[in-house]
Amino acid sequence: MNSLSPASAVPSSNPPRLLDSIHSPTDVKRLSPDQLTRLAQEIRDEIIAVTAKNGGHVGPNLGVVELTIALHRVFSTPEDQFVFDVSHQGYVHKLLTGRSGEFFRNLRQTGGASGFFYRNESAHDSFGAGHAGTALSAALGMATARDLRGTNEHVVAVCGDAAFTCGITLEALNNVVASTKRLVLILNDNEWSIAKNVGAIAKYLNRLSTSTTYNKVHHDLEKFFTSLPHGHDMHRMWVKWKRETKDFFVSSSLFEKFGLRYLGPVDGHNVDELIKNLEFAKNSDVPVVLHVITKKGRGLPAAIQHPEKFHGASPYDPITGESKSSSSSDTPPNYQDVFGHALARFAKANPRIVGITGAMPSGTGLHHLAAACPKQFFDVGIAEEHAVLFAAGLATKGIRPVVAVYSTFLQRSFDQIIHDVCLQKLPVTFCLDRAGLSPNDGPTHHGLFDLSYLRCVPNAIVMQPKDEDELVDMLHTSLQLDSPAFIRFPRGSGVGTPIKAQPATLTIGQAEVLKQGSNIIIWALGPMIPQALQMAQKLEAEEHLSVGVVNARWAKPLDRELLLSQAAVVPLLVTMEDNVLAGGFGSAVLEALQEGECTTAVERIGWPDKFIEHGSDVATLRSANGLAPDEVYRRVLARWRNLHHASVEAEV
Amino acid sequence: MNSLSPASAVPSSNPPRLLDSIHSPTDVKRLSPDQLTRLAQEIRDEIIAVTAKNGGHVGPNLGVVELTIALHRVFSTPEDQFVFDVSHQGYVHKLLTGRSGEFFRNLRQTGGASGFFYRNESAHDSFGAGHAGTALSAALGMATARDLRGTNEHVVAVCGDAAFTCGITLEALNNVVASTKRLVLILNDNEWSIAKNVGAIAKYLNRLSTSTTYNKVHHDLEKFFTSLPHGHDMHRMWVKWKRETKDFFVSSSLFEKFGLRYLGPVDGHNVDELIKNLEFAKNSDVPVVLHVITKKGRGLPAAIQHPEKFHGASPYDPITGESKSSSSSDTPPNYQDVFGHALARFAKANPRIVGITGAMPSGTGLHHLAAACPKQFFDVGIAEEHAVLFAAGLATKGIRPVVAVYSTFLQRSFDQIIHDVCLQKLPVTFCLDRAGLSPNDGPTHHGLFDLSYLRCVPNAIVMQPKDEDELVDMLHTSLQLDSPAFIRFPRGSGVGTPIKAQPATLTIGQAEVLKQGSNIIIWALGPMIPQALQMAQKLEAEEHLSVGVVNARWAKPLDRELLLSQAAVVPLLVTMEDNVLAGGFGSAVLEALQEGECTTAVERIGWPDKFIEHGSDVATLRSANGLAPDEVYRRVLARWRNLHHASVEAEV
Repeated sequence: MNSLSPASAVPSSNPPRLLDSIHSPTDVKRLSPDQLTRLAQEIRDEIIAVTAKNGGHVGPNLGVVELTIALHRVFSTPEDQFVFDVSHQGYVHKLLTGRSGEFFRNLRQTGGASGFFYRNESAHDSFGAGHAGTALSAALGMATARDLRGTNEHVVAVCGDAAFTCGITLEALNNVVASTKRLVLILNDNEWSIAKNVGAIAKYLNRLSTSTTYNKVHHDLEKFFTSLPHGHDMHRMWVKWKRETKDFFVSSSLFEKFGLRYLGPVDGHNVDELIKNLEFAKNSDVPVVLHVITKKGRGLPAAIQHPEKFHGASPYDPITGESKSSSSSDTPPNYQDVFGHALARFAKANPRIVGITGAMPSGTGLHHLAAACPKQFFDVGIAEEHAVLFAAGLATKGIRPVVAVYSTFLQRSFDQIIHDVCLQKLPVTFCLDRAGLSPNDGPTHHGLFDLSYLRCVPNAIVMQPKDEDELVDMLHTSLQLDSPAFIRFPRGSGVGTPIKAQPATLTIGQAEVLKQGSNIIIWALGPMIPQALQMAQKLEAEEHLSVGVVNARWAKPLDRELLLSQAAVVPLLVTMEDNVLAGGFGSAVLEALQEGECTTAVERIGWPDKFIEHGSDVATLRSANGLAPDEVYRRVLARWRNLHHASVEAEV
Repeated sequence: MNSLSPASAVPSSNPPRLLDSIHSPTDVKRLSPDQLTRLAQEIRDEIIAVTAKNGGHVGPNLGVVELTIALHRVFSTPEDQFVFDVSHQGYVHKLLTGRSGEFFRNLRQTGGASGFFYRNESAHDSFGAGHAGTALSAALGMATARDLRGTNEHVVAVCGDAAFTCGITLEALNNVVASTKRLVLILNDNEWSIAKNVGAIAKYLNRLSTSTTYNKVHHDLEKFFTSLPHGHDMHRMWVKWKRETKDFFVSSSLFEKFGLRYLGPVDGHNVDELIKNLEFAKNSDVPVVLHVITKKGRGLPAAIQHPEKFHGASPYDPITGESKSSSSSDTPPNYQDVFGHALARFAKANPRIVGITGAMPSGTGLHHLAAACPKQFFDVGIAEEHAVLFAAGLATKGIRPVVAVYSTFLQRSFDQIIHDVCLQKLPVTFCLDRAGLSPNDGPTHHGLFDLSYLRCVPNAIVMQPKDEDELVDMLHTSLQLDSPAFIRFPRGSGVGTPIKAQPATLTIGQAEVLKQGSNIIIWALGPMIPQALQMAQKLEAEEHLSVGVVNARWAKPLDRELLLSQAAVVPLLVTMEDNVLAGGFGSAVLEALQEGECTTAVERIGWPDKFIEHGSDVATLRSANGLAPDEVYRRVLARWRNLHHASVEAEV
């Protein structure tokens, strides 16, 4: 999808950087062991320089510098495969596989490197990802394919500890031993998913890595073993000893219950120790989990102090850690903050209102609720299926759960939405942040499908506010319904509408006419409304057409009455949405017209039937996909002229 | 949704049955302990009698008779809540909660009891289900709601061992201790999900329940402890001893790693022992898992011999276990068998073709592949997310995976379909059985949404064959594509078309004109085609209209060229699909016409925007929802007349 190839490295200041001599993993293998520390430092500098400018996943990448170097010393991609979970920690891997220089410096920008693994970007990216918990399962497929084909390469899955809160990883873990004898699973344990890790497994891992007695004995004995000759044999004995004594000191390993050999914990910033353990794992004849302890944000004091902020950061000052927000002080607040504050306010007044997040308290704005009403706040970890079912269970007993989730991650809960929430018509409110584009993150993070996949589900009520005040009204309204409600809103700041002191209760399925018109009427949702109003003005000014605009508000149920009454008198309707066209809002309009036996012409504006790449900003991506305001204007006008021409012909 | 209430018990032969005196759980509590064995026997007889006639989940229910009786002796629904995983093992519960008699005898028939828990059916059904792995998560929501509200009732989740292959259960397990201190989890361990249970957890549970040394010591000591006075204290000591010695003899419990107290294993057919353990669990101040060993099919020799067949059986002879198939010997084979045989044939010829199922080798027809090419067959357990990701991993390395899954269960994999398979355009074939109705099972099992939720996903190719031979062609075609492909087909037998010796390669997106027409053209998918052809004939015979029929074949990509060429010359198009109308196939037709700037009238036939109840058969449910052939005929004719009337008016 991305036609730009990595640019060659740009000359840098003297002395020449080792990094600039790395064009492929072979070059990493060529370095002497004592050069690796310098390489690690250069990589950290580069990551800090680039993310300070472009934003990105700073903390996770600073944590895996030594681990990634060690992986490329021991294994050989692309013959061997690395599958990184979420793959937001793949920057180091990109720098070591021929993607440094300008291409990396344009990280997450149009034409630059993706912030994630991306099969179209490099043969070294064996499996793309942007959602958590997929690596072990995909790696198991690869290892099984290797076994079926009788080849001999290695497959390495690198998973954060947060992946183990996620059902897919656990499903995969249950299948490892039945599927293959050769697989290396790196557990990159930094005690964080995005926020601080939660749940029993996190606690368990923590016990495993912090048992003092165990670690003391471990440390002393390791010194002894590694001082002996016969490196590999001695290491094997050492590993065996560790495994067996761990059961004694800590309790037997969870992973061994699943049939994997457990190694570790290993210091994830000690390249030598990593290489030794990776070599051992590589030669194991059973699947191995190597437990590596890393420090998220290592090398950037601000990132160590604020791990959640620096998980995925906007551009920042690398010295102070301050965000370099391009927005001035009068930028309206983000939708997520408006939502979070409103929910906190409602929850304070009603102890039955609770909020649920899957490891994203800040991203979703739910940290405002956590601060205001900690007992009404639940972070269940990266576990979207459980989050929704947990909400369903709460709702059966009169609690009013609000699930705060990004549109793209709600895809994980689709069966729970249908089978548990909507079939049983349980009053759960879903607040879908990032509906529309997440431009820098790209296709794994855009929220362009939710209108389509929710609209087909009976009992679902699906809405999108025109501004942040209407978002509060919708939240307020949803909390009074006896059915499931879905409120979608875009990433980023609102439009500046002040929030009313008392929210209004909206009438379900009632659209709002913003502007009357007799030639064309535009039905728009959410952030498309300002563009619709501008287009209406321009069509009036330049073409002397009378153009109305409707704030549709409800994708389901649609305001059919208003729609059909307008369709009966206006020759052209236009729909505008921030969703794919297939099955989306415009499709709902077509269905309603068909059911009303009305054949009024419609022009639908929305995203085409393709995955949308990452890019510098919303405007760039809209332009690249035929959705720039001028182009939309031309399409609508052309449709109007075709219709007018046809009707003039018919009259003749 | 179901307006029929349970009928009162029908008089039966003497002596009067205890079962006929049970109208609520209170009546269960009134029985003397020695009456419980008789009650259990009567329940078994009733379940066998009813399922022999109606079909149903025989094995799972025969396995939980004593467990369910014990639950109702110790707890009090509806104040306390039972959440049964999948809830196909809820027949005993229904019989004990006022739903015996005619209502139960019409199990899975129109107007009779649902085969599952169903909130609309009884206050004793606290949470409905039909998909696996939801119970623990929902129960945790309920327990948390109780804690928030400060009430004191008990919440009991009853999960089969198969639920622990399922990611949601494991996500929930990770959250139990953080969410509540009071929850009872019954692990109903019968070593089967639907097929024999798979994976590491199953093996682990098996070790836990079969360690001989442990069980011997356990048995002797239990005798000693229970012979002492002070029942409860002694039992507590005994349980403590068991817990602590288990670590020694078997290895520490997986559940204790998650912070739950582990009790068991307990004989699931010993009511006394069950009651004692449930009483203990009820009073525990930490979440408890009670490991109960049951025998699937207990009391029906045929069900014990054939656990998979009797998991969910069609009507059978209770003595011989033979299926009472209503179909004669010349009934065409089922779609699932045609699919399974074809896949086995293709896989024999090409070792790169593999099949993947989530615990349903027979239901999906994949047992034919397992028999023919065992190394090319993968049963990953009830783990649909992993199944699809595993396929994606295989596909990256040149393997051609075919995921065989019911339409309704594929909802579980929606994110993996978007984020892993389609975004990366990996050639995975999905065969969606039970697309359309599963009439006896009802809303949790109907496959009425897949066209809508798949149509919005870029790179997806979505098709439905008109008969079993075209199914084989589609499978063959899909295995040559370089993109994901989805083939949906209905439950039950094909139409009798013989399978060609050599399958044809179909052209993607090319529909098939079955019959020309100049007034109306019907675009139909799959099993709607015969009905479309009949309707066309009737309209010609009775109304002298010229009516064409198109086998649409592809829901995506649609044959736009053919559609637009027909729409240009025919005044009315009709679409017919076995899917909800919202976002479905007819919606795709509307979209294509709109994009072609064509305003030809369309009438869409498909399922309305509601959940469809269970019922005796497809015809009954179609009639109840306005889709009987006569009604569809009337609608199409009425639309034609409205159009004709309008065009006559326009001419005037």
